[in-house]
Amino acid sequence: MTASPASLDVIAIGNAIVDVMAPATEAEVERLGLAKGGMTLIDTERAHALYEAMGPAREISGGSAANTLAGLAALGAKCAFIGQVADDQLGEVFAHDIRAGGIEFATPARGEDPATARCLIFVTPDGQRTMNTYLGASQYLPASALDEATIASASVLYLEGYLWDPEEPRRAMRRAIEAARGAGRQVAFTLSDGFVIARHGDDFRALIAQGQIDILFANEHELAALTGIEDFHAGIAQLAPKVPTLVVTRSENGAHAVSHGEHVSVPAEPVAQVVDTTGAGDLFAAGFLFGHVRGRSLAECLRLGAICAAEVIAHYGARPEADLAALVADKAG
Amino acid sequence: MTASPASLDVIAIGNAIVDVMAPATEAEVERLGLAKGGMTLIDTERAHALYEAMGPAREISGGSAANTLAGLAALGAKCAFIGQVADDQLGEVFAHDIRAGGIEFATPARGEDPATARCLIFVTPDGQRTMNTYLGASQYLPASALDEATIASASVLYLEGYLWDPEEPRRAMRRAIEAARGAGRQVAFTLSDGFVIARHGDDFRALIAQGQIDILFANEHELAALTGIEDFHAGIAQLAPKVPTLVVTRSENGAHAVSHGEHVSVPAEPVAQVVDTTGAGDLFAAGFLFGHVRGRSLAECLRLGAICAAEVIAHYGARPEADLAALVADKAG
Repeated sequence: MTASPASLDVIAIGNAIVDVMAPATEAEVERLGLAKGGMTLIDTERAHALYEAMGPAREISGGSAANTLAGLAALGAKCAFIGQVADDQLGEVFAHDIRAGGIEFATPARGEDPATARCLIFVTPDGQRTMNTYLGASQYLPASALDEATIASASVLYLEGYLWDPEEPRRAMRRAIEAARGAGRQVAFTLSDGFVIARHGDDFRALIAQGQIDILFANEHELAALTGIEDFHAGIAQLAPKVPTLVVTRSENGAHAVSHGEHVSVPAEPVAQVVDTTGAGDLFAAGFLFGHVRGRSLAECLRLGAICAAEVIAHYGARPEADLAALVADKAG
Repeated sequence: MTASPASLDVIAIGNAIVDVMAPATEAEVERLGLAKGGMTLIDTERAHALYEAMGPAREISGGSAANTLAGLAALGAKCAFIGQVADDQLGEVFAHDIRAGGIEFATPARGEDPATARCLIFVTPDGQRTMNTYLGASQYLPASALDEATIASASVLYLEGYLWDPEEPRRAMRRAIEAARGAGRQVAFTLSDGFVIARHGDDFRALIAQGQIDILFANEHELAALTGIEDFHAGIAQLAPKVPTLVVTRSENGAHAVSHGEHVSVPAEPVAQVVDTTGAGDLFAAGFLFGHVRGRSLAECLRLGAICAAEVIAHYGARPEADLAALVADKAG
């Protein structure tokens, strides 16, 4: 079918999270028993204990897909976000920040416990972030929060694998995929983290096999987890034929994409000092998707991804601080 | 009288505020009718309107005297804070951050409206901060929150002029001054802002005349407002004889202190790039007071103030990020 012209570039469904970030030493990360560099889901009790152990922090809106939209909107894309906050101060912070970034956000706040999601992030001197996520209200996103007409109006529906874990949002995302595909739109999906692949890899492989995913984002570890193949190129060779566009990021080793048989690699953009890697993958996806919805070449999409990722790891927080549109105009013409 | 040995270096009474900070253009500051570079008290309605107009923000604990303690504690001083938060998420954030900095904080959260204080800070490209403060719970600090034994146990009681404006905290601060002086301790006071001098200058002049203030902090504008004398040196000459130690900061022109007749000036510490001047005066006071409680010379106290102020204006937020103790050891021996 032929889709009608899209009025939105990207609509995303993701966790609505406020990041609580503090510097930490390697010794503290070890003493607290944290999985360095990874993301761990935590309950209320653990959230309190870890917050107690954390140094003076700052709060900055986060959430993987929301960060990607923040990047896309900063680049000039028209975006909307669907995600669940609670009716509390952190929920207000999240809603403010996403709307202030020029992103439509209409999901009503949830008026009961639990509180808005937060992610306690310990940032070690090497710039690595160790994330501990209290999902709170975020995991109660109901399918009823979806406005299918809005989903149908966006060129790309972007989904965050993290949110595949809780049941209600998973159901909502399945419905969203149907709505998007029914309207002739594309679906982009990020695998997010090894733990979701461990728990839901069968779902993801089925979605791919059924041709439900047009653009798949992964980092090299997630690629290995999904394919069961350790070797990077062998993993790419196995997965690429199954999905129209596959984008795999490799931190300081750049990124590789395969789209309809075309292979392109891009080196990482140089960064004077890696301050905090939180949001690197999210912003890579932002740059890539911006190029994609603007009809740029695969190489250009990758380059945009690399530029946006480099911006976000040069400072604290997973949302862009620099004028991304100007940065990209400067560096990628 | 001779005071018993102090178990705390500094106890401070101040506003318990979370800063909500966002970059803004000069045009936005003008369009919103903000008093650039100053501090304006705002009500709930204006707070909502300004927050609505603000870009994506980050939340970092603030409050003038609380920032000073954060600096003092980072330098190695033993400190306690008295201030009023509400029983809400921003109150938790404030309490967490101050305690995580190693500062005693025992004031119970207030279980009713209004919410915890916040300061909406618009930071222009020149690094100037324009502050709009919703005082919320902070202005309801009751005199009953004072633990006079704790006040009596600190070498210095540090008071924030901002908090002289609301009635309950003013009463609490008067009682705290009595408790400190009764125990043979010193009282340090910061004039905070022109508006409090306009409203309470007579109180401040009376406190000074009565010999209630041992160390007075002001910037050059506050000096002019308090003395009614525009000329800097003439203002110093008028005020200095009335207070044992007078410290006047002059932004990029450094600072000047007069203590028991001795005059010392210090240049501003060079900063590669001024990012956000929020907290400059607060951290100057931190460095100065640290030197003071450690028995350093007047020149050394000023130098410590300049180093701490330079650290805080080189990044977003009014609390130190670098290891201040190491910085000071490096720069000031």
